[in-house]
Amino acid sequence: MAYSMGEFLAHAIAMEREAAERYLELADMMEAHNNLEVSGLFRDMVRYSTMHGDSIVARAGSMELPKLRSWQYRWIAPTEVGEEDGFDYRLKPYQALEYARVNEQRAAEFYQAAADAASDPEVRKLALEFAAEEREHTAALDRKLAATLRS
Amino acid sequence: MAYSMGEFLAHAIAMEREAAERYLELADMMEAHNNLEVSGLFRDMVRYSTMHGDSIVARAGSMELPKLRSWQYRWIAPTEVGEEDGFDYRLKPYQALEYARVNEQRAAEFYQAAADAASDPEVRKLALEFAAEEREHTAALDRKLAATLRS
Repeated sequence: MAYSMGEFLAHAIAMEREAAERYLELADMMEAHNNLEVSGLFRDMVRYSTMHGDSIVARAGSMELPKLRSWQYRWIAPTEVGEEDGFDYRLKPYQALEYARVNEQRAAEFYQAAADAASDPEVRKLALEFAAEEREHTAALDRKLAATLRS
Repeated sequence: MAYSMGEFLAHAIAMEREAAERYLELADMMEAHNNLEVSGLFRDMVRYSTMHGDSIVARAGSMELPKLRSWQYRWIAPTEVGEEDGFDYRLKPYQALEYARVNEQRAAEFYQAAADAASDPEVRKLALEFAAEEREHTAALDRKLAATLRS
């Protein structure tokens, strides 16, 4: 889909805000598991998402942004990551990392697709930059997954 | 999982609030499609969810309820209902009905599982009642799906 700059920024802001909220939940959950390493990684992600979101808001300035629908930016639930009981309170570290990974991957794909379809060269440039950032996050999660026992 | 009354009510309230918000989005979206029949069904669902949520809040009274995690009550995204582009703005009537149906079915299963696992007979009674309600919603969506062109 060829997004206008406003549409693109609206997606990016909503996705960064959502990521910050989800990572905060996950960080708290990992503290409850006494897993301070994974919790620390998630807190870093909260910071990156918040800073990135703030910088996109600043860039948007007074531009009017469209209102998005929840399904355009919400993370997909960990049920889809192979859980039977999507309503379970607990996520173990491995599951939490997988949950985040699926959604970072999805964000990277969103940005890459936006770049590929872009007609506005500025949208394309930003989308490529954001896609690269999301791939870095995915790689960081992969490294932590490799060091975490599947449970 | 054998929920205490407080845990059970917290789930039920969060799920009804979430359903009301999602149905409101869907109703607006269907109006944008000029599909007033499906929009009307969704608006009825907003009303049922809101009233049901309010009655559960009243029942909980001053009981202290646990804070839930987003993945315990959020609807699963329409991506999982077979969409390739989970970030697409538009949902056509058939997809919107399927999206709702998946989540009503999931709610019915949640309540049924809570009833099956309950040790508190009051939790069991309520959970069975709520499961039956969700199955009625699922049936209403099925009737509308049967009358709607797949697109």
